[in-house]
This record gives sequence, C-alpha cells and structure tokens, in this order.
Amino acid sequence: MSNPFFKNRGPFLISDIFNFLNIKNVSEKMNISISDIKDLYSSNSSDITFFHSKKYKELAQKTKAAFCITTESLKNELPTSCVPLIVENVLVSVSKITSIFYPDAIDDDFDDSVIDINQTDFKDKVTFGKNVLIGQNVSLGTNCKIGHNSIIEKNVSVGDNCTIGSNTIIRNSLISNNVKVLDNCVVGKHGFGFFPNKNKNLRYPHIGIVIIEENCEIGCGSTIDRGSMSNTVIGKNTYFDNQIHIAHNVKIGENSIIAGQVGIAGSSIIGSNVRIGGQAGISGHIKIGNNVEIGGGSGVIKNIPDNTKVMGYPAKNIRDFLRDNK
Amino acid sequence: MSNPFFKNRGPFLISDIFNFLNIKNVSEKMNISISDIKDLYSSNSSDITFFHSKKYKELAQKTKAAFCITTESLKNELPTSCVPLIVENVLVSVSKITSIFYPDAIDDDFDDSVIDINQTDFKDKVTFGKNVLIGQNVSLGTNCKIGHNSIIEKNVSVGDNCTIGSNTIIRNSLISNNVKVLDNCVVGKHGFGFFPNKNKNLRYPHIGIVIIEENCEIGCGSTIDRGSMSNTVIGKNTYFDNQIHIAHNVKIGENSIIAGQVGIAGSSIIGSNVRIGGQAGISGHIKIGNNVEIGGGSGVIKNIPDNTKVMGYPAKNIRDFLRDNK
Amino acid sequence: MSNPFFKNRGPFLISDIFNFLNIKNVSEKMNISISDIKDLYSSNSSDITFFHSKKYKELAQKTKAAFCITTESLKNELPTSCVPLIVENVLVSVSKITSIFYPDAIDDDFDDSVIDINQTDFKDKVTFGKNVLIGQNVSLGTNCKIGHNSIIEKNVSVGDNCTIGSNTIIRNSLISNNVKVLDNCVVGKHGFGFFPNKNKNLRYPHIGIVIIEENCEIGCGSTIDRGSMSNTVIGKNTYFDNQIHIAHNVKIGENSIIAGQVGIAGSSIIGSNVRIGGQAGISGHIKIGNNVEIGGGSGVIKNIPDNTKVMGYPAKNIRDFLRDNK
Repeated sequence: MSNPFFKNRGPFLISDIFNFLNIKNVSEKMNISISDIKDLYSSNSSDITFFHSKKYKELAQKTKAAFCITTESLKNELPTSCVPLIVENVLVSVSKITSIFYPDAIDDDFDDSVIDINQTDFKDKVTFGKNVLIGQNVSLGTNCKIGHNSIIEKNVSVGDNCTIGSNTIIRNSLISNNVKVLDNCVVGKHGFGFFPNKNKNLRYPHIGIVIIEENCEIGCGSTIDRGSMSNTVIGKNTYFDNQIHIAHNVKIGENSIIAGQVGIAGSSIIGSNVRIGGQAGISGHIKIGNNVEIGGGSGVIKNIPDNTKVMGYPAKNIRDFLRDNK
Repeated sequence: MSNPFFKNRGPFLISDIFNFLNIKNVSEKMNISISDIKDLYSSNSSDITFFHSKKYKELAQKTKAAFCITTESLKNELPTSCVPLIVENVLVSVSKITSIFYPDAIDDDFDDSVIDINQTDFKDKVTFGKNVLIGQNVSLGTNCKIGHNSIIEKNVSVGDNCTIGSNTIIRNSLISNNVKVLDNCVVGKHGFGFFPNKNKNLRYPHIGIVIIEENCEIGCGSTIDRGSMSNTVIGKNTYFDNQIHIAHNVKIGENSIIAGQVGIAGSSIIGSNVRIGGQAGISGHIKIGNNVEIGGGSGVIKNIPDNTKVMGYPAKNIRDFLRDNK
Repeated sequence: MSNPFFKNRGPFLISDIFNFLNIKNVSEKMNISISDIKDLYSSNSSDITFFHSKKYKELAQKTKAAFCITTESLKNELPTSCVPLIVENVLVSVSKITSIFYPDAIDDDFDDSVIDINQTDFKDKVTFGKNVLIGQNVSLGTNCKIGHNSIIEKNVSVGDNCTIGSNTIIRNSLISNNVKVLDNCVVGKHGFGFFPNKNKNLRYPHIGIVIIEENCEIGCGSTIDRGSMSNTVIGKNTYFDNQIHIAHNVKIGENSIIAGQVGIAGSSIIGSNVRIGGQAGISGHIKIGNNVEIGGGSGVIKNIPDNTKVMGYPAKNIRDFLRDNK
C-alpha cells in the first residue's frame, strides 16, 4: 500500500522488534534492519509482515518478507526465506509493531496545527467561506470551493474543480478532480478498529487513507473512515446520497450509486456499476460484484456475484424475495 | 408549483428550445415565447411541459401547455393545442431545458454571499449565537433564536418564534411559525437526483424548495432535501426525531411522528397522523395514507391505505407480521 | 435520580399542586411542602411521585412518597402513607408538575450564555481548537482536548484525559476520565418525548442527564439524548462506531461494542459485554442481557436473555435465523 501521509519512524533492528514482542532469539540475524510492516503481498525483503488466517495461505507461500508475525500452526506455510515470529495473538502483535513504525496513526484527536485559510497561500487560489481551517501537508487544486467552518486537517490532497461543503472535516485523504463532498461530512478518521479488552480496549493504528476518485459526490452527513492496513477507496463517478457510512478498508468501484443511510462495514469490496437502495447494509469482509443491484433496506451478509439483483434480509435474488413476500 | 426562490431566466423563444434539443422544425410557430417549464398539471398556454410515462396519461390529456417534451409513443395522448417535441430521453431533455430557465438550481456549492449576522439588521431582532451567517433574500420573524455556527443561506424565510439549533445549514426553504430545527441539520440542499452517465453523471436542476409548516420540530442531524420539479413539504405539528433523512419531493402530512433514523425516499407522499417507528424506510414514489402506523425497522415498498398498522420488511399488516413471527 | 444540573424551583405547597392540576381538596393536609417530583422508587416523604401502569405495582406498594399522581384504578396499590391524586392522564399531569419544579428542562434552545474558551480559565488548562465555546457550570479535567467549533454548553463535567472532536455539541452531561467523543456529535439534548396533541404537541421536561463512564469512545455523527425522569448511561469502556443514535433513558453496560448506524429507542436497558452489529435497531422499553450478540441489521423487539446470540427482524436465535434463511 502506498502511504503518502503517515511518517514511517523506521527502520528498526529486528532485535528491537523481538524484544518489543518479548520473543526469545530464534534467529542468528539479529542486526538486520527492518524498513516497514506490510501485508503479505506488498512486503519485500527488508520488511516484516504478518499471517494470521489460513485464508491467506497462498499469499503467505509467496511472500518476500524477511520476517513474519504468525502462529505455530501457520508457520510452515511460509517460504524458507521468511523467518516466523511466533506469537499468541497475531493481530495484537501487529498492532504493537505498527505503532512503533507509525505512532501518529493511532489517535485521531483534532488537528491543532491548523491555521485560518486567510493565513495561507490558498487564500488567493480557492474560493472559501468563513472560518475555514487548513492543516499541514495540504494541497488544493485550481477552481476549488471550501464552505464555511470546514476543516481540511493535515495530510489532504484535493484535485481541481472540487467543492467541499460547510461544516465538513477531512484528513488523511486523496481527493481527485471534480469531486464534491457536501456538508457535515467527516472523511478520513480512523475506523472502528480495536482489540476489545476488559476495562480498556486497545486501539490499533490506521495507516491507510481515504481515496476518492474523480467526479464523485458525497452526500451530507456522511462518514468515510480511512483504512487500517489498506486504503478506503471510492471509485470514480460514484455518487453517495446523505448519511452514508463507509467503514475502514472498504473499496467501491466506479459509476456506483448509493442511496441514503446505507452502511458498508469494514473491508468489504463493492464492484462497479453497483446500485444500492436506501438503508441497505453490507456486512464486513464480503465481495459484491459488478453491475449488482441491491434493494433498499437489504442486509447483505454474503458475497454477491456480478450482474445480480438482490433484496431482503438476508439479501437473496430479488425474484425470490418478491415471490416469497407476495 | 410556486417558486419564490429560483430566478427564471426566461422567456425563451421556442425556436431556441428546439435548437437546444437538436430538434428539427416541426411547427410553424417558431417565434412563440415560452415563459417557463412546468409539470403537466401546472402548465398554462405560455409554458412548455413534459410527459414521460403512461402513468400521467390523464394529466397529459388535459394539459394547457403550448409544447410538451415527450416520445413518439406517448405524443398521441396530448390535446391538439399542445405541440409535441419528440426526444429520445424525456427526462434528460427536461433537465437540459430546466437548466436554461433555472441555471442557479443545479449546483449547491456553499453560499459565498453570506455575511455575519452582526452586519445585518437582524442583529437587533433575533437572539443569535457566535459565528451565525446570513445569506441574501432571507427573512426572519420575531422572537427567533439561531444557534452557534448556523448558516441561513440565501432564499430562506423563517416565521415567528422559531428556533434554529447550532451547526445547522438552511437554504431555499420556507419555515412557518413556531418551528424548531435542532442541531447539525442540513435543510434545503438539492436531492439525490441525476441521470447516471458513465464517467460523469448529469445532475438535473432542483427548482423545488423545502416547506416546513408551523409547530414542527426537526431532530438533530437530520437532512431534508428540496424538491426537483415540486416542493418537499413537512405538514404542521409533525415531529422528527434525530438522524432522519427526507429525500426530494416528499410530502408529509400534519400531526405525524417520525422516530430516529427513518429515511423516506424521493417523491413519496405520507398522510397526516402517521407514526413511523425508528429506522423504518419508505421507498420512493409511494403513498402512505392517513392514520397509518409503521413499526420500527419496517421497509415499506408499496402504498399503504388509511387507518392501517404495518410492520416488517416488506411491511405488511402488523397482525400478519406478528403471527408470522411468533 | 441524582440531578446535578437542573435547578429545582421547589418546594411548593401541595395546595398549589392540587390547584395546578385542577383537583379538588381530597385531603386535610393542604399546607404540606413538597420538595421534588421523583419516581416511585426514589421518592421520600417530602416528595410527590407518579404511578401510571400496573407494571410498577410492586414499586408503588413500597413508595415513601407523600403524594402520588395516579388513576382511580391504580390508587389502591399505594400504601396508606401516600395520598393519591386522581387524574385522567397521569403522564400529562406529571409533565405539568415537573415543569413547575424544573422549568429549564423543557426547551433546548441553544445556550446563549456560552463564551469563547479564550475568555475562561480553561485556556491555560486544556488544548483547544478555534472557535471553542464554553457554557456556565462546566468543569474540565486535566489533559483534555477540545476540537474546533465545538460547544460545551452549560452543565457539563468532563474528566481527565478526555478528547472532544470538532463540531461537537455537549450539554447536561457527566463525562468520566479517558472518554473520546468524536466529531459532529450532539450529546445531552432532550429526548424525543412529548405528548402528541393535535395542532401543537406538548413537550415534557427532560430532567435526566447523559452519563458517559470512563474509557468510552463515541463515533462521529452520533446523538445521545438525555433522560426524561432518569439518566441516559453509557457504561465504561463501551465503544460506539459512527452515526449511532441513543434515545432518552437508555442504559448501556460496560465493555459493549456498538457498530455503525445502530439505533436504541427510549428507556431500553442493554447489558455489559454486548455486541451490536451495524444498523441494528433496539425497540424502546426492552431489556438486553449481558454477553449478548446482536447481528447487523437486526430489529430487536423483545427482551433478550443473557449469553444469547440473535439476528433477524424480528431478532431470533442466530441458529434459527441462519437455518430459516438457508
């Protein structure tokens, strides 16, 4: 995953990582320098990766990572070039190590480095309302408009001809040309991702960002969370109605239309030319194909193949739904 | 439809309209002046109208419009006084012509003409919070209160004894006496109406407004979109809980009660004395009678007659729902 | 119920209360002073209480209140120490009497007494954004952060190490240590409670508050209403995703996890270690036990015992749901 925004504090010595995880020396190579923590697919030979579920066996067998946080029962899937670090809970360990590389990606307190847009060079470049605030590492294209009380926090790139509404907050996002984000939205906050823990849950870092491709429109009061280990992506010319919630790591294809109050749970992948009716919900970690229509109010809890119309809770073929509910 | 807010740039010559739609001369009367574009029912003899579905056959037969955008297969329903303009896609053509008459009704970028309320005459008339902004063509009644950071954009009329919360945005709306709009609402934005089009959807104008009648209350975080070719109307003494979404062209009667997170899709008509439970959804283009109760979580996908209690998804008679789910 | 925030204008003579309710003298003791109006359980011998449903018979039999607003058919359940006031509609009468004791608890117009945080002593104590407003009777702990445009209205106590996002509004709330309330939330507004009445509904007072215990997180765009005659309580280490709606009087236990767009209707009680999937809805006045899992999209309309997994609309045992929907 490309990560333009969160500063990598690495490299770290693998010996430091072993120590941090309380793992005894299982390898001679303790002075190796580790550049980054990445997923199985993206890792190269100077990275550490992680492998926590058999689902990813094929990716694990081909990983180029030098080290892999995993379990006793999974370690044999790894290539010999990859040294396993055996832990009790892979994801908790990943969270800890990611926190070392990316300490800024855990908390999402408000950005107190923002300044009034009138104090920036953007004041002569974009049209803006009252009380607009701009953070560090922000770029804005030509012919953009930013409404009243909106806050472009740090780590945001906005293309040309974009319109941001009023009372909207954006951070850690790449927004392409001709995008409209309407009023009262929050884009780029961390997702609802943490390890439940009695008395005090453990938040894990969200080093992903939000990518909104060209010609999209995001309706009022919507929330789009940034990804944890990958990005949240809204494909080009996709339109959202009001009060949509998009969780972390979700990918949506092009030319899709999503009606009011729809929610899409974490890590689901939605195809292109998909139409989702009002108040429908999509469970996490599922895949919706291309050219799919999902009726309003549906609850989709499993994968939907291309070119399918579904409706119901749980969603099924729309003809079956209408027949069963005559 | 009365339209107090969007400036009509007409009249235009019918020859210009023919040219704009790329239609060859089918009539001698090319120098006729056209005042406005209206629906079949509202049009008079200086207007152009449109007719795109057999559903509206009876209205078409009686229209007083001089011209009508329609299709080859529908044109014979029109009276001889009405000259048909045959197009491939009626609604796209209507959108184009409406854009000529009402160019300001397409985009909803933030209103950059607003000024601080302290710079207006309202400063001595209403009670207001910090950072309140007021647009052009706004009127406010006596004894009104406007909360912090709220923005009354252009084209808003507010009656007496009204309360607007904080962080709320209103535009293109007529609000009667004794209405409360609570915090974080967006009222009067254009609806989720456009023609899907690969790579770049085509937004059509929304020349309707939002009308909120007296004694209503609108809960926090709600969104009420203005109409496209008609108005969105909330009848008197109707109460909304938080996080309600009302789409464009919806009409709701009097004395209705709508619980949290309900969504009503475009152009549906809800009667008076209707009670809608939390999270229920109403499909677009349907009609709910008077004295109807809709259980929480229901999904209503067809018309509901007066004096009926329904529940379920799809919603059915509540006795059937409870019996089927024992 | 403890009530730190709403000023009690009492005591009042019982004769005044009789007069206000248009009740004729049924007792010799007309010069007795009444301190407060409370529920059956909390009342002591200088209070007036109310009893409107057989459900509360056992509490009624043990109440210590001197007087009780009730009906002819219920009055015989009261102990002889408690004098019944017979009315036609108990809740309307309670509303009227509560309005006398707590006139400030009916309307929720914006707090026009707030001042810029730079004009308060908090300016040296907390980290804060631009345009932060602080009301009267507010306390803030050490190491707190308050985002841009947020409004801490009157009657709010915030513990140590808390983070309030941007564009968030809080009033009438007790917030413990280590709590995060993210952006665009509204916490502590009155609930959706009123007596429907033709032409003009009758709002009743909400003298409850919102209590958020330590280590909680409240997602963006959420609304948490304060209680009417009791408090709304979020137990410690409970996490909310975005766009959650919690109605008045709801109690939620500890270590619970509530996913995006969930709504919980008034007066329901949710246990500890409960997990609620996205878009699920919980009806009002029901009880969800401890260690319960509620699938995404569910509609829960009756009590759920401890240690149960449910899903569906209406929600049933998850095994039954999955079997019935194969």
